[in-house]
Order: sequence, then structure tokens, then C-alpha cells
Amino acid sequence: MSGNSLGQLFKITTAGESHGPGNVVIVDGCPPGIELDMSDLQRDLDRRKPGQSRITTQRKEDDQPQILSGVFDGKTTGTAIAILIPNLDQRPRDYSEIANQFRPGHADYTYWAKYGFRDYRGGGRASARETVSRVAAGAIARKLLAKHGINVVGYVSRIGSIHSEIAQPEKITHDMVESNIVRCPDHKKAEEMIQLIDQVRREKDSIGGTCTLVASNVPTGLGEPVFDRLKADLAKAIMSIPAVTAFEVGSGTGAAGMKGSEHNDLFFSTPESGIQTMTNHHGGMLGGISSGMPIIIKATVKPTSSIAKEQKTVDINGENRTLSTKGRHDPCLLPRFVPVGEAMILLCLADHLLRWKAQCQ
Amino acid sequence: MSGNSLGQLFKITTAGESHGPGNVVIVDGCPPGIELDMSDLQRDLDRRKPGQSRITTQRKEDDQPQILSGVFDGKTTGTAIAILIPNLDQRPRDYSEIANQFRPGHADYTYWAKYGFRDYRGGGRASARETVSRVAAGAIARKLLAKHGINVVGYVSRIGSIHSEIAQPEKITHDMVESNIVRCPDHKKAEEMIQLIDQVRREKDSIGGTCTLVASNVPTGLGEPVFDRLKADLAKAIMSIPAVTAFEVGSGTGAAGMKGSEHNDLFFSTPESGIQTMTNHHGGMLGGISSGMPIIIKATVKPTSSIAKEQKTVDINGENRTLSTKGRHDPCLLPRFVPVGEAMILLCLADHLLRWKAQCQ
Amino acid sequence: MSGNSLGQLFKITTAGESHGPGNVVIVDGCPPGIELDMSDLQRDLDRRKPGQSRITTQRKEDDQPQILSGVFDGKTTGTAIAILIPNLDQRPRDYSEIANQFRPGHADYTYWAKYGFRDYRGGGRASARETVSRVAAGAIARKLLAKHGINVVGYVSRIGSIHSEIAQPEKITHDMVESNIVRCPDHKKAEEMIQLIDQVRREKDSIGGTCTLVASNVPTGLGEPVFDRLKADLAKAIMSIPAVTAFEVGSGTGAAGMKGSEHNDLFFSTPESGIQTMTNHHGGMLGGISSGMPIIIKATVKPTSSIAKEQKTVDINGENRTLSTKGRHDPCLLPRFVPVGEAMILLCLADHLLRWKAQCQ
Amino acid sequence: MSGNSLGQLFKITTAGESHGPGNVVIVDGCPPGIELDMSDLQRDLDRRKPGQSRITTQRKEDDQPQILSGVFDGKTTGTAIAILIPNLDQRPRDYSEIANQFRPGHADYTYWAKYGFRDYRGGGRASARETVSRVAAGAIARKLLAKHGINVVGYVSRIGSIHSEIAQPEKITHDMVESNIVRCPDHKKAEEMIQLIDQVRREKDSIGGTCTLVASNVPTGLGEPVFDRLKADLAKAIMSIPAVTAFEVGSGTGAAGMKGSEHNDLFFSTPESGIQTMTNHHGGMLGGISSGMPIIIKATVKPTSSIAKEQKTVDINGENRTLSTKGRHDPCLLPRFVPVGEAMILLCLADHLLRWKAQCQ
Repeated sequence: MSGNSLGQLFKITTAGESHGPGNVVIVDGCPPGIELDMSDLQRDLDRRKPGQSRITTQRKEDDQPQILSGVFDGKTTGTAIAILIPNLDQRPRDYSEIANQFRPGHADYTYWAKYGFRDYRGGGRASARETVSRVAAGAIARKLLAKHGINVVGYVSRIGSIHSEIAQPEKITHDMVESNIVRCPDHKKAEEMIQLIDQVRREKDSIGGTCTLVASNVPTGLGEPVFDRLKADLAKAIMSIPAVTAFEVGSGTGAAGMKGSEHNDLFFSTPESGIQTMTNHHGGMLGGISSGMPIIIKATVKPTSSIAKEQKTVDINGENRTLSTKGRHDPCLLPRFVPVGEAMILLCLADHLLRWKAQCQ
Repeated sequence: MSGNSLGQLFKITTAGESHGPGNVVIVDGCPPGIELDMSDLQRDLDRRKPGQSRITTQRKEDDQPQILSGVFDGKTTGTAIAILIPNLDQRPRDYSEIANQFRPGHADYTYWAKYGFRDYRGGGRASARETVSRVAAGAIARKLLAKHGINVVGYVSRIGSIHSEIAQPEKITHDMVESNIVRCPDHKKAEEMIQLIDQVRREKDSIGGTCTLVASNVPTGLGEPVFDRLKADLAKAIMSIPAVTAFEVGSGTGAAGMKGSEHNDLFFSTPESGIQTMTNHHGGMLGGISSGMPIIIKATVKPTSSIAKEQKTVDINGENRTLSTKGRHDPCLLPRFVPVGEAMILLCLADHLLRWKAQCQ
Repeated sequence: MSGNSLGQLFKITTAGESHGPGNVVIVDGCPPGIELDMSDLQRDLDRRKPGQSRITTQRKEDDQPQILSGVFDGKTTGTAIAILIPNLDQRPRDYSEIANQFRPGHADYTYWAKYGFRDYRGGGRASARETVSRVAAGAIARKLLAKHGINVVGYVSRIGSIHSEIAQPEKITHDMVESNIVRCPDHKKAEEMIQLIDQVRREKDSIGGTCTLVASNVPTGLGEPVFDRLKADLAKAIMSIPAVTAFEVGSGTGAAGMKGSEHNDLFFSTPESGIQTMTNHHGGMLGGISSGMPIIIKATVKPTSSIAKEQKTVDINGENRTLSTKGRHDPCLLPRFVPVGEAMILLCLADHLLRWKAQCQ
Repeated sequence: MSGNSLGQLFKITTAGESHGPGNVVIVDGCPPGIELDMSDLQRDLDRRKPGQSRITTQRKEDDQPQILSGVFDGKTTGTAIAILIPNLDQRPRDYSEIANQFRPGHADYTYWAKYGFRDYRGGGRASARETVSRVAAGAIARKLLAKHGINVVGYVSRIGSIHSEIAQPEKITHDMVESNIVRCPDHKKAEEMIQLIDQVRREKDSIGGTCTLVASNVPTGLGEPVFDRLKADLAKAIMSIPAVTAFEVGSGTGAAGMKGSEHNDLFFSTPESGIQTMTNHHGGMLGGISSGMPIIIKATVKPTSSIAKEQKTVDINGENRTLSTKGRHDPCLLPRFVPVGEAMILLCLADHLLRWKAQCQ
């Protein structure tokens, strides 16, 4: 319980379901005096919204946020910021099939088992619709971090068996990412990815992938011993997103196959660079504390659970059934995942920036 | 700051350095009436302790815990349990070299940059010595979970490029794991792993690997929407351990290459089994809530940063230097990681078990 | 920062200002399956709302809540409940005077000094308007507690120098409290109180008072050693309400003048009563844990700071000024304080009830 | 559960019982680089320790703390500070009488009812012995606050019906307080208080009183809307101390009898003073945020529950019994309460100072 809040100083609390009146997020602890207008929020919300391209779900939501509090004269006041994003595209429909059956790969069964009954309209609280709140709050964190020069960019690095080839993740910009609909800055691979997604959709199927997330210009010193290591809090933030099955930092799973003499990033120093490492297997954190090198995270996202193919399942009476999920779904979650992943990194870094200020500045 | 606590209801707070008088952990929120004696703690501490085999560090610590509070007449009282594990093997030595130089792969540089100075004796608070507190507290969580039939077992599933072959992770027992010094229940691969570790030690090098962690018999319903998903809290718990670079649940990074029709675990029900899934790509959690299927986690652990080979680095004045780490180190962290990984899973599940009781029972 | 949440398991987070679009509260951790409809909220909101009688402010707000999430088919789902209470009576007015001057007794100066600027419209976040969120959330806690037989009733026990005479606070019912507009169940004293309030209003002044809050049928065992004593969490809950200057439990400040032999409440036991105490100087808590006796709290509320009389003050440039507060204000806060005080007791007890369930049930 | 921690950024976690090996406190979040030696802790511990004068208990404890971690080269490192205070004066004795009977005014009954059994040796976790941890941690907070010029002084302002007369609480120094054994800086009244305490001890009885606590030079801006008002967090801190029955800020309970025109503290400004108020009924906080005026708190402490007089009670079988508490007890808690009350104010201010730095500096 009480699992709807994240962060200690820059803290968000969310509520809302996919088919209720809307989603709301309260951002607590934001410093005062940060200039904030609707376009700051809208930019990231538009990158997440459904219906943005032919490879995303065709559900339509404008996702226009309303700021209910905490902003005055165009600036944050330092008090709680509440944002409401109304749900608009709620077609009346027949829920009788999914009301009593558990969609494979979804939370239908676990919510029902946990709470004894559930809001079966489109997933209720378990719907990825809730990530709209994360993106809205993340946009505020982005403004705060920008004042300290910190930048967070994500991109799709893998769809199915197609891997992008990006030599320097920290050089990727939002413009490069937004230049194609799959959000992969390797244009050649992006084309292949789009074709693959088109194909699985035609097959009434879906496909998984990987998102790389990079935070640049993070000052040395963010993160706390021993449990609130920055990598631990980033892991929680990313793994709290629906459909994420793996979290990697730096060399990630590759570290299992390496020797210490390969993996250790050697320090050097020049008058221009200050102290840095020659390589970045550590992904920007040592001892769980930011090292000043780019923070490099990878999130694996499973294939969309909602597919039009027929699947076996059971109903709430334990009867074995067959189900094919209707409705409008993303054949691949990755393109719309990018702004959500960025939001979680932004929120986590904003929190740790304030924690660092409190103790060490 | 305040990063030395973990958990909301079953909560631990730790303190201590590698070369101070000892490590201490306070366990808060443990239910009353749980029988607890020293042997419960000692069993897991012995699995973690240095010097236990030829492939671990030869540093010697008996790791005998002292219970300072919270236990009376052999049972937990419901009040705070404090445990002190004294440090005994603190050889007086010359720290002048590492006092001013940053060991590659270690937290020396980031602690120094964050706090302005640091306790340079053996890593201070950043030393993995602190995991002794996690294991002691985890042993208490193990007793609590056992009352609910929940069991947690970990084992080494990969060292370098050697992968174990375990068809059913949920069938692995502690006895199978403890039957060899590398803690891999695939005996054939275990032999190869031990040889590999011996070899890298002779090369003054180190090697990484992977630990698989399995929680069996977890009731359906543990985990909270939306940020405190069980997978998110498990990720934080595991990623808070020193040297862990990746966290995977179920299909893990493999999900990126799969289609929905492959990945979705179909439900079935029989009078004997109740509702289950035919496969377990989801790793025991759906929507972040336990499904009743075994929880399957993988943690990647980087190669030990302390190696005897010479490495380039810089000192606190930014001068470029050469360093070879002296002292007694593990050539591979994995064998001693197993009880630490188990402890973090145990602590996280104990916390969520109480949260579930509070709201849903 | 992050001061807009209260509670650990039954947790509320609020946002909103007096002159923005509305106030919002997210209730996290409420158990599933509690029947909840608008009338449950409306009853308490109506007791708090402005304009309810001639001795309250004549500002008008209907305070009709909108449930945005967390309730389905008339029952709580176990997920986050969001409630929006729109602000309706926002007369356009000239804020130029208070925008730059600090009203005595208000938070104008401290907010300005803390944040560097402030939302000067009607107090912004510091306005007691935010208590509407507390009352809405408290009504949900009331439903939860009612399932366990716990009842919370408050009443006005003092206005100025007029003290009510109530022999057995635990016998007071809501009907008795609501039988007059000052909410004092001693009818003779209530009349005097009403006259006093009428008089101070005519004098363009205001008056303070005391509210007594009683929780009955609380099971033995709520509250935690050592910092989360029930009395400590109740104190925080009550002292977090605007204008409260003192918190007392049981004998309260009177204990300073007593001897141990007078103050100690002696235990007795009969087959019918079980273990009880003969007197209740301890106010229902021993060692910070509920004893099963009625919990008796007193909250002192200062006179309304907004008075029509002219007062000296300074402006944001440090210039000395004279100000008389315009607008519609309560000449005495106590009648409308009663439901707010009850709400805070309800929220605190709901939280501790769940904590007790988690550990001890 | 989890009630053994206090604070968000400057956070303490304690454990220990009166008759176990000792008490331990972990201070998390303390900034690095604060000079700290044993004498800093010892000074306040000596003011709290038993046996310090003829009007305190004659139990003897030297209360010599051991720093287990977090301090290196005489300075805090920024990591968790653990302090152990061993219990020395544990006379073996016969607990058979109190093991099965509930001492009136103590937590014996509520602990037993909550947990099902209890550590009956001297109160276990409910013993005021645990306040030794608060004082040790408070001494660290005092060092941190001193760097910002903040000073906290407490004194006894009332014993029984004897009230001290102190015109300007903010002018009282530690030297003035320590000049007599009852810790009341009004020397004439102090004499009367000491006589009264001597008298109640001879009568085998005890007496209550009041402690005034003053924080000077607190910067404007500490405290958070809406629940973490500084007055709310101070209330929780003070009400978490054993035996405290009332908390007052500024005018306290007196505000109930005042008019707004009397109670409002008018602002003025001079070039020398800056913005201040002419009076200080608000006790240094407006809207829950520090105003720069001295913070004035009063805590009422009940008479010691342990008295040598015979009292009626019941045993764990519900049988009615008669009990006279043996052992060595304080006839009045107030003289030793002063450093404990100071410690709680210090801890709360240190926490809010860091929170303020994080958001507003």
C-alpha cells in the first residue's frame, strides 16, 4: 500500500485509471521560482500520447494537462503542484468478456487475486495510461535539471533482433531521436525496426525491444550509501514502469563475461577535462554515486501483452476459456516508452540533486 | 542522505565501515513471537564470510553477531532488533598509497568528490563489508517468511562465459547449492567455474558472473501499484548491492527479442493446481504483483575491482599515477554474493508481506 | 519539502490553493471493498463548509467533491483514491493591498521569506481552505474505522473564557454536537459562546477557543515505540492544522500540578469489563500505545488572525504600514474546526490500525 | 511498526532496552566535515544521566558512548554514524512481581496486550532509558546547528504549583540553567521547587511539571506546508518523549482566551532589526514556518508513574492485585527531562534546516 508515491524530496504521487475521469499527479518539493508553462509539459506528453504515428495504437488522447496548483505568475511557488490530465477517448463498450476473464500477460489476475475484485475497464489502475502522470511530472523535473545543465535523452536501441549501432550514446540529441517514428537515431536500423513492427502488427502479434537512456552532465556526488545508491533508485524508477523486464547500467549483463582488467575504467586527468575515466563500463556511477561520466541505462521492454491472436486463459470461476483481445493496441511499446523512461530518470535525478544539495552543498 | 534504511514496514537501518569497530543493523517492524537464536543468523553469515574456501578472499572474519535488543526469551518482542557484528581482522597497515589515490572501479573517487574527504581504510562505508548487516537482517526475514511457507534460494548461474544449465530453477535447494564451493548446482559447470576462478587469480585478475535468485511459494498479491511494484522494489534491493550491474526478472533481457504470442504466459486451471500459468516468462509477477508462480530474478555482478595487476589512475591532486591494489581480495565475487542476494530478496518480500497483510488481509 | 503527505499506510497527499481551480487529495493505501458514496464525504464537508451559519464566514462554497479514481461499483478498489473539490466562490478582487503587505498572524511574511515570492490571493497554499482535503479524506477513514467499531466525535469545549461542562466526553454523540451552531453539547454554555462570538464580530475582532476530540472503542495496541507513539502522531496530525497552538492528551497541562498518586490510573478487572482503568488521566494511551480506554485530546485554536480592525504591519520593502483585512472571515474558528479536528484523528487512527494489522494481527 | 526512526534528512533510528546490553542510535544524513568528539556527546549525556543529584534517581550509569562508525579523523564523514551506549548498572533482581503485574501509569499493560508478551525487565523498550539515544544524537545536531548560529536552551518552568517567573525566555543561557540542580533559572523559585521535590519523595510520591524550550537565531523559512509545519514536527518530536502530556507553542493554551487584536503579533521593521514582530504570541512560527523570532515551546511532563506507595492493579490473568514499585526512581522527571527536550528540538531543527537547504537555498 502507499505505493503511489516516488521520491523523497522531489516527490510525486499519482492516481487515476484508464477509463475514469482522468489522471492526476501531485509534485511535492519542487524548488520555487522555476518558470513553467503548459508547453513544457505538452512537449513530452505529445511524445508519449497514443495515435502519434502509424506504429502506435490508434486510440486518441490529446493529453492536455491542467495545472491545479503550485504555479503562480508562470513560476513554481515551492508548494505542491497538482496536474490533472483528463481522459477523453473513452468509448462506451462491452466489457463483459474481459470483466470475467484474465488477459495473459496482464495484471487482471493478480489485481483480482489481491483485492478480491477489480476495475476491469481497460486495466484500471494497472493500465499503462498512468504513465501520463509520470511524463507530466518528469517535464517539471527536466526544467529543474536544465538549470543545473543536466540533460536526459532516451532512444530505442533494439527491436526484436534488430540492434542499433550507436558509438557514443552521450552524443545523441532529442532532435536525432525525434527524426523518425520509432525513435532510433540509427536511421538505417530504424527503417528495419519500423518494417518489423508493421509486420508483427499484420500478424496480430507484438514485439519487444530495448531503450537506452543517457543522462549527461550530472555532477559528481549524486547518490547515497548504502541502499539509496543512485543505480538502485534508478533501477526502482525504471522497473516500476509497466512491461519492463530488465535494467542494466553501463556494461550491464555484459559484465558477467568480463575480467577486472577489462572492466575497470582507468582514471586520468588533464587540466581541461579534470578527473575522468578513459572508458565508461561503470555507466557513470561508482559505489552508487555519480562519477561525472555519462550515466548509461538500458531498459528491456517486453512485447505488448494485448494481441489480437486467440489465446487460452481462465475466467474468475477457474474455467478454461479462449480470448482474443479486442481494442486498439501498440504492436510495440518502445516508441512511446522513450519519454516515459526519460521521465523516470529525470524524476530520480531531480530527487537526488536535492538530496545532495541538502547534505553536501 | 538517509540512504542507510530500506523497507517500509520490515525496515532495516545499517551503519559501519570495513575498518571500524564493527557493523550494526537495526531491524524495525519485525512481528513479535518469532523464535530466533544465534544459529539462525550464523548459518547465513557463514555462507557470506571471507576465508570460507580457496576461491574467496583469505581475509578472516568470524562474523559472530551480538543481539543488542528486541529479542527476549528466545523470541522477537516486536520492538527494534539491533545486531552488532564486530570487525576483528583489522591488520594495521600502511594506507598511504590508497589514501591519496583512487582505485579504479572503486568508490574512492566518488566519495572523495561527494564528501570532500573520505575514510580511506579499506573503502570505509563503500566497502562490501557492509553486506554483513544485510545478511544478518535477512536471516530474520527468512524466519518470518518461513512461517508463511516462503522459501528463497540463490545460486551461481554464470561465471565468465560458463553458463550453468538448470532446467527448473524453482527445484534447486540450499543443499544442492552448498554442495560445492562456487555455489552452482550444475556440478559439471561448477567444476569449470572453479577452474576459471583459479586461473584468473593466478593471472592477478578477476572475473564477473551471474546469480539466479528464486522465491517459491510466494502468495498471490504481494506488490503495490504503481511505483512499489514488487519487481521495482526487488530491483532496488538487488541493485543496492555493491558490484551489481544488471537486474532481470523472468525472461529478462531476452524479452527484447520475443513476440507477444511467445512471451505471454497462458493461464490454466485444474482443481489441484488452482489458477497458474503454463510457462513463467513473467518471472512470478504480473502488473508488479506476485502471481503465485516462482519469482525468478537474475543479478549480474561485475568482476572484482581490486586486482593485483598494475593500473593507471590519478591521485587527489589530479596527478596521474600507477597503482596495484594490495591486500586480500576475492578473484570472483559470485560465491559469496549468493547469501547477500538472498538476503535482499528476503528483506523485500518480508516488507511486502506485511504491507499486504495491512491492506488486504 | 515533501510536506504535503501524511501517514505511512493510510496516507494522504494534498494540493491546492484558496483561489486556484480547486483542492485535490490522493488517499493511498485504503483497503479494498469499502462502500463509499458521495454522501459519505458530503456529510463532513457540509459541517466544515463556509457560510453554514451566522457565526461563520459568509463566503459560500458548496464543496461538492468529485471522485477521480479508486472507487468502482460503489466500493474502494484498493488503489489510489483521488478527490477533487473545486473552488467556486472566487470573487475577482483587488489584491494590491495584501500583495505587498504582510497580514499579522498570517503566513504572508514567512512564505515570502521562504520562497522569495508568494501566491498572495487569499493566502495561497497557507489558506485554511486546504483543510477541505483533510475532511474529505477523513470521511473515508471514518468508513474504514467504523468497520472496526471505532468512533470519533469532537466538540467545542471552550470559547474565550467560557468553558463547557461535560462530565463524560466519551458519551457525546454527533447529534448532540450538531444540535447548535457553535457545536458545544453543553447547551447553556453554547448560548453564551454564540453571544460572545456575535459580540467579537461586532467589535471587528475575533476569539479563540478549545476543541475536545474523543475516539471511542479503539482496540488496545495501536501506536508504536518509540517515536511513532500514538500520542506523538496524533500531536503531529492536530498541530498540522492552521491556527492550533496547543495539544493535550488526557490530563494535559493539568498533569504539571499533580502527584503520581493522583495521576496514576489504577487497573481493575471484572469479567464484564475486562482490564480497564478506574480513571482516565492517561487519555487512552500508555507508553504511546492505546489502552482501550477512550482517547481524549484537546486542541487549542487561536483567534482568527484576519480581523477588520486596523493593524500595524510592514510591506515587502520593509516599510511600516497600516492594514485592515477586508473580506469575509470567521469571527471564531472553532465551530468549523470540529470536523477538521475529527478528520485528523480519523486519519491518524486509520494509519495506525493498518500498521497494527501488519505487525500484530 | 517502523516507529524507531525520526526525521527525513537528518534521521535517527534507535534500539535498545533498559536491561539489555545497551542502547544504540544510528544518525543518518549528517553533513560531512563536522568536528565531533566524545566530549560533545558527553556534555549532554551527563546532564541526562541518572544519579547526578539528590533529587534524581540514584541508579548509576556513566553513559559513556562509543562511536562505531561515521566519524574519521575527528570529523563526520557524511555516512551513517552509529553510537553505542552500554548499560552498566543492571543489578540482578527479582522480577517475578512486575513480570506478571501491570504497573499503573506504565506501558506494561499496553505492550503486553499489543505484542502478546513483553520484556518485563525494567520496562524493556518502553523504559525512558531509550532517551539516552536521543540525547547522544541531539548532541550531533547541536554541532550542526551551531554552525548556523542556532541555539537551543531548555529549563524547568514549573514544578507542581510552583511557576518560575522568566520575563524573556530567549535570554536564558545554559549556564543559568545549570546553576542549580532543578534546572530552573529563577533561583528563588528553584529553591521552592527543590523543596517540593524533596517533600514528595519523602511521601513516597512524585510530582509533575513543565519544561520551556527556546530555539534562538533560527532563520526564517524552516518548516513545510501543509503537514510538515515546523510546529507539527516539533509537536511530534516532543510528544514522542515518555511522560509528556501536553505541547504548547507561543501563547499555547492561553490563546483560547484571547482576542485576535490581542494575539496578533504586529510586524515592524527597522534598518537594524529587519522585519520582526513586536510581541511573540506566535512562538516563532507563522503558517508553520519559522518567522525568525525565538521559537518558544512548552512541554508538560506528568508525575513519575513509579512510586513507592501501594497501588491497586491487575495481573496478566486479570486478577486484582496490590503493588508497590520497588527500585530507584526520580521523584520528579523534570530536571533530567531538560536535555531530552532540547535534544528533540535540536533533531527536528537539524532535519528542517537540511530540508530548507535542499529546496530553497
